Amino acid sequence: MPDLPDKRTAFIDWYLAVVEAADLTDKRYPVKGLNVWPVYGMAARRNFDRVLVREIEATGSHAVEFPALIPETEFAKEKEHIKGFDAQVYWVTKGGSTDLDTKLVLRPTSETAMYPVFALWVRSHRDLPLNVYQIVNVFRYETKTTRPFLRDREIHFFEEHTCQANEDHATERVRSNRGAFERMAHAFALPYLAIRRPEWDKFPGAYYSIGLDIPLGEARTLQIGTVHHYRENFSRPYGIQYEDADGSQKFVHQTTFGISGRLLGAVVAVHGDQKGVVFPTELAPYEVVVIPIPNAAAGDAPERAAGEIAERLRRHGRRVHLDDGEERPGAKYFRWELGGVPLRLEVGRREAEGRTVSATDRLGRKSSFPLDRLEHEVDQRLGEFDRALRERAAEVFRTSFEVARSITELAGSTRVRLIGWCGDEACGHAIERGIDGALLGTPEDPLPFEVGPVGPCVACAKTDGVRWAVASQPM
Amino acid sequence: MPDLPDKRTAFIDWYLAVVEAADLTDKRYPVKGLNVWPVYGMAARRNFDRVLVREIEATGSHAVEFPALIPETEFAKEKEHIKGFDAQVYWVTKGGSTDLDTKLVLRPTSETAMYPVFALWVRSHRDLPLNVYQIVNVFRYETKTTRPFLRDREIHFFEEHTCQANEDHATERVRSNRGAFERMAHAFALPYLAIRRPEWDKFPGAYYSIGLDIPLGEARTLQIGTVHHYRENFSRPYGIQYEDADGSQKFVHQTTFGISGRLLGAVVAVHGDQKGVVFPTELAPYEVVVIPIPNAAAGDAPERAAGEIAERLRRHGRRVHLDDGEERPGAKYFRWELGGVPLRLEVGRREAEGRTVSATDRLGRKSSFPLDRLEHEVDQRLGEFDRALRERAAEVFRTSFEVARSITELAGSTRVRLIGWCGDEACGHAIERGIDGALLGTPEDPLPFEVGPVGPCVACAKTDGVRWAVASQPM
Repeated sequence: MPDLPDKRTAFIDWYLAVVEAADLTDKRYPVKGLNVWPVYGMAARRNFDRVLVREIEATGSHAVEFPALIPETEFAKEKEHIKGFDAQVYWVTKGGSTDLDTKLVLRPTSETAMYPVFALWVRSHRDLPLNVYQIVNVFRYETKTTRPFLRDREIHFFEEHTCQANEDHATERVRSNRGAFERMAHAFALPYLAIRRPEWDKFPGAYYSIGLDIPLGEARTLQIGTVHHYRENFSRPYGIQYEDADGSQKFVHQTTFGISGRLLGAVVAVHGDQKGVVFPTELAPYEVVVIPIPNAAAGDAPERAAGEIAERLRRHGRRVHLDDGEERPGAKYFRWELGGVPLRLEVGRREAEGRTVSATDRLGRKSSFPLDRLEHEVDQRLGEFDRALRERAAEVFRTSFEVARSITELAGSTRVRLIGWCGDEACGHAIERGIDGALLGTPEDPLPFEVGPVGPCVACAKTDGVRWAVASQPM
Repeated sequence: MPDLPDKRTAFIDWYLAVVEAADLTDKRYPVKGLNVWPVYGMAARRNFDRVLVREIEATGSHAVEFPALIPETEFAKEKEHIKGFDAQVYWVTKGGSTDLDTKLVLRPTSETAMYPVFALWVRSHRDLPLNVYQIVNVFRYETKTTRPFLRDREIHFFEEHTCQANEDHATERVRSNRGAFERMAHAFALPYLAIRRPEWDKFPGAYYSIGLDIPLGEARTLQIGTVHHYRENFSRPYGIQYEDADGSQKFVHQTTFGISGRLLGAVVAVHGDQKGVVFPTELAPYEVVVIPIPNAAAGDAPERAAGEIAERLRRHGRRVHLDDGEERPGAKYFRWELGGVPLRLEVGRREAEGRTVSATDRLGRKSSFPLDRLEHEVDQRLGEFDRALRERAAEVFRTSFEVARSITELAGSTRVRLIGWCGDEACGHAIERGIDGALLGTPEDPLPFEVGPVGPCVACAKTDGVRWAVASQPM
């Protein structure tokens, strides 16, 4: 196993190497952009999905599943939406040797699959809110360079779609989604910004879009989730209306909330280091790996102690792997560091005789504790590991932004830029040309670090209505 | 809500009505054979998947996921296989407005997606066995009449694929799969037969196929699962070989094990009655529904007791629904019988005052017990409900078969037929014409009921090598 490329100087090479070396994906499938989820990556994905399901269901959303194939006629009903996806959908045109009467789109997202049926489900104000989600794969014929998790052609996708009685309720649902995402991001130890996209970059068909973005070194950012308010933009063409308490017919207001496997890639990209992946505890396929250190003078005492530890932790509800194979301990350390296991426990002769355990977490912090306090000590160390991971990520996050006071300062940016923006579209495009990237938009919340007061618009120098905005090179 | 059609005299009408009335599926999606999983059906599917995952993982199999799109070049590598699926695959021919260089098949099953990658994964005898499974949707362009769960165009699918060192190990894996299926069928309370398919009806590319079949009234049967032994039939064209301990290169022997959402349809079809679905406990979206019976003289005592019951059962790990809405109790009974909830608990004035609970299971058996023994009594009643359901299904199963001693006796069969068959293909086809259906093949195990000794072959009257075989009208 050769060393990984340097994360700081060759980020993308490092990323591509680490996701394969750690067995999170297999890129050797014979179609570009379609990757295999091998056993280890699939275990991480299962944990990923569990967090998403837990947090969205806590907000009163229910799982459903809609078909993957959407008839062209339904797909084309909302004009902005089809314009936005037209160039990147896969078309199913034949069944067996028969040309299909109606061509079918492989879903790139599920508005157009769900909303004709929502129109049947929603009849009365008593049917509202309708909050449903699905975890499925979506398909996009990407023409840009594909990268596992970050840009795939078959995408692991979480999408919530809701119908609300009015605009305020929909706004409230957007807020609830943001709360759910905050808890997901906490589990994944990922600091992020919620940024309202400019008009020209919102989701096709949306009233407004909030992107959930993370900095990713230099001026790069990655969108790891989105929340959209649709108002009546889809309910009108799809006829989703209800009878209100007063007998009047009203169109629902809709929202959506999307997260993809890209978020799993973001975890790798943000937390990983030169040794490999670093998983927060909730995501790790194994939370703990237990390694006996053979010792001629100790007989099988280390192996027996290691077995006892693994068994007790399993009963305690932890995902644990006992690595009692014949390799050298060093090779095992190497593998499980690469795989991002949060906590490694070792038992050699000294530990077996003294009924103790040596522990090393994935941030390299070593300690030891008495075997009889195993469960408690492991819980505590995993909690501390997650806290430390969160703090380290927050520190990197804080140093990833830099204020720019003029368009010319944007050229050659090596950090994500915070700028004053008056909200004008022409100024926005000038900013985008300046950074050779995108104006992500205006943060929804006060910035989580000190930047002082906003200056004038970097493009037009106006001070009226100027707000902080974020400009970057999105991946 | 109109009455359901009569299950005995109008089985298919009853089935189609019950899966929609109970909200297991929504057929109003605008493409035939593509159905929506609504909230209630999706909850049942989640339980269904959990049983499959638990039982297959207990046999040392691991989750993976392969792409849904298969390039035509890989799809065409095994000649029998492509012949078997050619007529019923969906073709993706365009991405955006671009014609794809290589057409893509939407997977009808995943041999041809997985095996090119297995060839990379398997290098040494130390990589074996490779036992992996995925739960995904597969797609078949059905030209026959589609029916929810029983015959869909987008199919919820479990597929295990394994690589073994040699034929014996593969045979052992087939046995292990059959054991896993036995435990799944136990959870679903479904008696079935494992039947080795005749040569002309095996899976395209298989060495042999075992169908897992259930009788479904009159002469009908339904295949609810399959286990296949492939020998080297796929490993040769896909080049899946390994270096054995002695340094020689060998092709792996492969097996597969497939189950689809059809099994969920089978549960509805077998256990359901004139009131609706009857779910075995493991599958039920709610295991218990709790209904307070309002009583003017009792104040809110029934509601408070019902709330306490629901809360205690939830803490006890049960899936429970508290139906404290404003409908009449009778309307609630009706709905949850339709939905197949195994156990209904009621609390009225008498129960609230006496600290007791009235219970009715989905087979109509009534009882009551002290509230302080709630958890224990509920566990016991659910266990007894499953046992009773299993016994009822076993009784129907036993009476679903009838021996036929001649081809002419097969005409107009009103039961599944057991016949003597010499194993000859011409005789097999004569039998198929006789019953106007299919010769399912020869049972793998002794029949689980008494039928006496097998007579001569019903087609040729030979007695040499004659074995019991099963003839039916497969759905």
